[in-house]
Amino acid sequence: MTDAEALAARVRKGKLRLHELDEHADPDTAATARRLFLEDVTDTDLGTVGEYAFPASEAESNIENMIGTAQVPMGVVGPVSVDGGAADGEYYLPLATTEGALLASVNRGLSVIEWAGGATARVIKNGMTRAPVFRVRGVAEAATTLEWVEDNVDALRAAAESTTSHGELLDVEPYVVGDSIYLRFAYDTKDAMGMNMATIATREACALVEAETPAALVALSGNLCSDKKPAAINAVEGRGRSVTADVVIPGDLVEERLHTTPAAIAEANTRKNLTGSAKAGALGFNAHVANVVGAAFLATGQDEAQVVEGANAITTMEARPNDDGDTDLYASVSLASLEVGTVGGGTSLPTQAEALEVLGLRGGGEPAGSNADALAEIIAVGALAGELSLLGALSSRHLASAHEDLGR
Amino acid sequence: MTDAEALAARVRKGKLRLHELDEHADPDTAATARRLFLEDVTDTDLGTVGEYAFPASEAESNIENMIGTAQVPMGVVGPVSVDGGAADGEYYLPLATTEGALLASVNRGLSVIEWAGGATARVIKNGMTRAPVFRVRGVAEAATTLEWVEDNVDALRAAAESTTSHGELLDVEPYVVGDSIYLRFAYDTKDAMGMNMATIATREACALVEAETPAALVALSGNLCSDKKPAAINAVEGRGRSVTADVVIPGDLVEERLHTTPAAIAEANTRKNLTGSAKAGALGFNAHVANVVGAAFLATGQDEAQVVEGANAITTMEARPNDDGDTDLYASVSLASLEVGTVGGGTSLPTQAEALEVLGLRGGGEPAGSNADALAEIIAVGALAGELSLLGALSSRHLASAHEDLGR
Amino acid sequence: MTDAEALAARVRKGKLRLHELDEHADPDTAATARRLFLEDVTDTDLGTVGEYAFPASEAESNIENMIGTAQVPMGVVGPVSVDGGAADGEYYLPLATTEGALLASVNRGLSVIEWAGGATARVIKNGMTRAPVFRVRGVAEAATTLEWVEDNVDALRAAAESTTSHGELLDVEPYVVGDSIYLRFAYDTKDAMGMNMATIATREACALVEAETPAALVALSGNLCSDKKPAAINAVEGRGRSVTADVVIPGDLVEERLHTTPAAIAEANTRKNLTGSAKAGALGFNAHVANVVGAAFLATGQDEAQVVEGANAITTMEARPNDDGDTDLYASVSLASLEVGTVGGGTSLPTQAEALEVLGLRGGGEPAGSNADALAEIIAVGALAGELSLLGALSSRHLASAHEDLGR
Amino acid sequence: MTDAEALAARVRKGKLRLHELDEHADPDTAATARRLFLEDVTDTDLGTVGEYAFPASEAESNIENMIGTAQVPMGVVGPVSVDGGAADGEYYLPLATTEGALLASVNRGLSVIEWAGGATARVIKNGMTRAPVFRVRGVAEAATTLEWVEDNVDALRAAAESTTSHGELLDVEPYVVGDSIYLRFAYDTKDAMGMNMATIATREACALVEAETPAALVALSGNLCSDKKPAAINAVEGRGRSVTADVVIPGDLVEERLHTTPAAIAEANTRKNLTGSAKAGALGFNAHVANVVGAAFLATGQDEAQVVEGANAITTMEARPNDDGDTDLYASVSLASLEVGTVGGGTSLPTQAEALEVLGLRGGGEPAGSNADALAEIIAVGALAGELSLLGALSSRHLASAHEDLGR
Repeated sequence: MTDAEALAARVRKGKLRLHELDEHADPDTAATARRLFLEDVTDTDLGTVGEYAFPASEAESNIENMIGTAQVPMGVVGPVSVDGGAADGEYYLPLATTEGALLASVNRGLSVIEWAGGATARVIKNGMTRAPVFRVRGVAEAATTLEWVEDNVDALRAAAESTTSHGELLDVEPYVVGDSIYLRFAYDTKDAMGMNMATIATREACALVEAETPAALVALSGNLCSDKKPAAINAVEGRGRSVTADVVIPGDLVEERLHTTPAAIAEANTRKNLTGSAKAGALGFNAHVANVVGAAFLATGQDEAQVVEGANAITTMEARPNDDGDTDLYASVSLASLEVGTVGGGTSLPTQAEALEVLGLRGGGEPAGSNADALAEIIAVGALAGELSLLGALSSRHLASAHEDLGR
Repeated sequence: MTDAEALAARVRKGKLRLHELDEHADPDTAATARRLFLEDVTDTDLGTVGEYAFPASEAESNIENMIGTAQVPMGVVGPVSVDGGAADGEYYLPLATTEGALLASVNRGLSVIEWAGGATARVIKNGMTRAPVFRVRGVAEAATTLEWVEDNVDALRAAAESTTSHGELLDVEPYVVGDSIYLRFAYDTKDAMGMNMATIATREACALVEAETPAALVALSGNLCSDKKPAAINAVEGRGRSVTADVVIPGDLVEERLHTTPAAIAEANTRKNLTGSAKAGALGFNAHVANVVGAAFLATGQDEAQVVEGANAITTMEARPNDDGDTDLYASVSLASLEVGTVGGGTSLPTQAEALEVLGLRGGGEPAGSNADALAEIIAVGALAGELSLLGALSSRHLASAHEDLGR
Repeated sequence: MTDAEALAARVRKGKLRLHELDEHADPDTAATARRLFLEDVTDTDLGTVGEYAFPASEAESNIENMIGTAQVPMGVVGPVSVDGGAADGEYYLPLATTEGALLASVNRGLSVIEWAGGATARVIKNGMTRAPVFRVRGVAEAATTLEWVEDNVDALRAAAESTTSHGELLDVEPYVVGDSIYLRFAYDTKDAMGMNMATIATREACALVEAETPAALVALSGNLCSDKKPAAINAVEGRGRSVTADVVIPGDLVEERLHTTPAAIAEANTRKNLTGSAKAGALGFNAHVANVVGAAFLATGQDEAQVVEGANAITTMEARPNDDGDTDLYASVSLASLEVGTVGGGTSLPTQAEALEVLGLRGGGEPAGSNADALAEIIAVGALAGELSLLGALSSRHLASAHEDLGR
Repeated sequence: MTDAEALAARVRKGKLRLHELDEHADPDTAATARRLFLEDVTDTDLGTVGEYAFPASEAESNIENMIGTAQVPMGVVGPVSVDGGAADGEYYLPLATTEGALLASVNRGLSVIEWAGGATARVIKNGMTRAPVFRVRGVAEAATTLEWVEDNVDALRAAAESTTSHGELLDVEPYVVGDSIYLRFAYDTKDAMGMNMATIATREACALVEAETPAALVALSGNLCSDKKPAAINAVEGRGRSVTADVVIPGDLVEERLHTTPAAIAEANTRKNLTGSAKAGALGFNAHVANVVGAAFLATGQDEAQVVEGANAITTMEARPNDDGDTDLYASVSLASLEVGTVGGGTSLPTQAEALEVLGLRGGGEPAGSNADALAEIIAVGALAGELSLLGALSSRHLASAHEDLGR
């Protein structure tokens, strides 16, 4: 009987609990024991879940009760030239997904962009937020607390930044609802996505608020952050990176490669992404930005639940007359709240780190923050490609056929 | 020189393109060739990406330009007893994530639920939607087109259902904006998530609309569906499964296991998830439902971009007096638009299929649809556990500490 | 000392309260007494407030504690030809407002519409809603309650319609959030705006729900109605009348009369009303529909607070090639939730009734509902005119100048 | 034949148009001529419309094509004591409405507040916004334009403030969507509601932007303002005054006067105003704030279409244990975007000016802005009273009965 078998037996007998296995064995043995136990009680085979490509110890900070890995097919699209504020050059973008036809679609879009000379991209705004909620006795106390906050931003900054070597407090924005005060702290977290950094820094600032004002902390997150929820505050004001990518595509290229026209794409975009989304009460005015964001997040070790904010994007398509008397297609996608990092979180897991290396963006950038900026810009270009391709397909009625052919 | 090396060389020389490799080699060799090429042009090592646990041919319908897999740590939480409309019994829930502390948090919540006797869950509504957009000449034509639609739902149903052996058309809801008509088709797609089934069926129905009315199809999806975008229409009317899970937890259990009180949790929930979300202009009134949805989606082969709709959830927490004069905690989470399946998409990929087997929900259910219903109910219970645990932690101020201890 | 002076003196001495005056005098004397009292304690002159044009008794069902009237300037715009589902012919539209330049703007738009041959309008959907909220013990009880509701719509209809001679129950749509059930009752209230009719009918239906199910009524309105609040449910699903008005304007008319081009107006509309509103997290994608709705509501005795829902409107503008090779402007406005009536509420007040008579729509229509339909259509045409005019002005940069010239 | 009859005859003959009458007669004669003409062509009697209480010349800057006035019943509620940042003392609030039972309801709420010692109110934020939209060639140009804006806020302020003696530019917030740039200018417009002041000042600032950057103005309002449309940006960030009013009401007072309990009101508020609104996809989480805002706006000469933004309000109700071991009710209402003024617009019309005098707030305040602040605070207290009364009625099931008794 192996160690793992012995441990699994003890779990079966109720002498150990699954999460206690880490105290009795190395991570791989603990994972094996959990699989053995699960296979036994659920009468299943976890063979491929257990066949992972790295020591379980490398995932210790990413998961508890590990049993193995989910293996999500990873492919690559590109190359595409990006003229960004941080990104600069030709990139291959790894994407992990289970949705057939997605990479083919994005790749088609990227090749059109490449034929047009590449895309432009810029991070327009950057700030990771955390917004604690405090209780006061009423609005009179709220008003005096807000005055204190306004007068003591430097002290709050000092407190917040005392917890981090990289992060910088950018702003504290107050909101009042009755006897609740929300303070939305925004940080430049450089190459980290920064949610954790922001939380820890804000906790320290909250201690100061509590010490100096009548406000009592109710929850370190009061949902004006807003993390992993669809919320207008992120779509309007941004969270993480606000990034836009765009391209001008000559009309003949649109016809040749997308089998449609700038005017037809612009019409489809207006009726679907603008008017349709408007009627749907949407915060996302795009076709399928989340597909590209999700697949890039999975490939590069981002937080998959933050695909939620990644979907806060507006796509515009415009038939634009050019100087030669022809009509080009101007296409853009603006992601309001793309939360990405190249350090921390899942970015150092083996397959994800390799994907970041393909982009040349593993680890901290020089200057700090430039790798995460570049990642945001490249993902935006990928999203732009997905929009172009899908709108092209829709306006030439290929959506369902594409899916059928590619066999989903 | 291996076949893969030879192919990679041809790609380098520009004689082959990455996506053409599938025509010249088996899937694994093609993936190897792509890795070799990428490693060369980006000066990287894709060793772990290439070390996947199944023949690449099994992912053919899920990805193009495959280079390997992203390996996302998978763990397991539970067991938890679920009294559902379809789910019934004790379940272990596999979750794949890179966010440290998440499984520990959900597991803590599940154990509280289990101590309280398990959770209740029900799928309240079910319907996968696709909403094409048509162009008419104006509102007069829109009105007559709508009359035709209203009078011919049976014909539309026949057309739509002619494309599918399982799917059933439930409803066609029309919307008009100027000279655009949107028809929101809703289907019971049984155990499939059903996006593709709905698309194909709707295409057929659209052909009928175009043949019989003046309306001209502009795009098969007009964003009133609304797929992978934050949109009120899904939060209000639902998409996929609308599912609620709830539990009543005795007050002493709350104090003992969550170190807080029903009243404190209710207050934190009201100030954060209700009032805070209200002030944020949110469509999601919860703490971190997307975390659990995302991790369950990854583990079980769901579409990761549909985490967007999965975040349309409302959490309620209520201090409820009981007959003994004590105060219980009533906790619920209602997910408006959880899009899940147990067949199709990524569900048959090897690691994902194993995860579904752990749940006893791989493949079609008996009756049809019951497996997907059960999966929705169990994910909802997992989300409920995450809410309970995080709100407990927030109201006892443990959020950041928990993250620090668990080392993210 | 007049009666009114004597009564005012008694109020001053604390022997009577303001709202008790109706028990001691006729409505006009009571109003006079209140003015005298107020003039005294606030040292003011209420001369014009007291100089109203009808017996106070005619306002008894519209106000309490009456002191007189607010006199809001009323003007008239038109004539405009409307080809509606109910409206048919040439109309002058009375508008009451304090915003200088508004009528001039709407009038300019109407004259352009008239030159183009008049506007088309249709009521696409009609239903006044009331949505009570019930408490159950949990989702299991919610599910069984919903089953009962689904099986007993006829009984609910009978109960609801027992309270009204005109109203018809169209639909009952259930929503569940944890242990709260919301039932959205929708009624055809014919020529009445119908909020009160819907409330009374729903109360009767609620009694049946409470008698037959475990659900307990918490509030007769649970905000899924949703009355006088900005809410996506109304923007998406409609409330009151969903009405669209549109017009095709020849390009030379646009240039001659609006001093701009179809393309320039379409661009301004896309960047402002579609993209700008999208970025603003809006439920209203228009320029100033609320201005026309508000002014028409005031003139015709509608509920001024329902201007809120009246603003849920989408404006589209499109440069549309015509058969002659020229480019027309297609302009439309779609109001999702316009709540209007020609009977009840403020419609029988003297000045408001006169305004309705100018429209030929005072009182009940033949068939029932047609007067309110026509009113909705004409207001929509007025709103369309306002959009056309303002977008024309914006795209030719006249907004602020217009206001300056007209002296606000 | 009077002058008016003669003029009306010329209109009938097509020799004059309605809006040209002002050039041929004094305002009252012109209005009479229009009535005569309308009465003739529509076969109506405009007797009460024409019986207005002031010279038509006083409304010249408020309306065009005047025919008379709409007379809306005005009543008064109060007195109520307000402890505000600007308001201080006891106030009677004039309200104009056609909705029976409204004043009775608000009055009931105010009397409960008064019994509890009066309400507290504070303006938390103040800023009237105007957000033009510019076109650039793409995001690269957008980024450099934003840099220019950031570096030249002082120059923009100088330009903007050159147009106004009172207004102050507070902030310029940029937003980018593709090739559109939106600059949200926020102003302190003191005692004016300020929309026009903001428009004129912004136009001047836009000229500078156009002169110094590649950006071209498309529309002076790009809907990120956002005026008279439901939009999250206003609900989140505020527009005009962001004002909160609150009160603590002893439990026995709740029972005695509202016939319910703090817990029952809190429950009704949570299920209706918070959870129900959440499920409705709302931007307004209240019961009927718009009713009070609308009626106060009408009485005091505010812009009735801005009731739209006035509805962006959150009501909270909380059963709060006090030091005596009893339970009080904490009630609050927070209006995010209340746009009010005491100078300009309709505030100087005779009946409206009288209503402002009743409040002691006619004209500019000392210091500047204090009158508008006080008006916002008092309206907020009125709204709070309305919420208290309606929630009390709902939780004791009196809503429909109240309406029936009061005879709507």
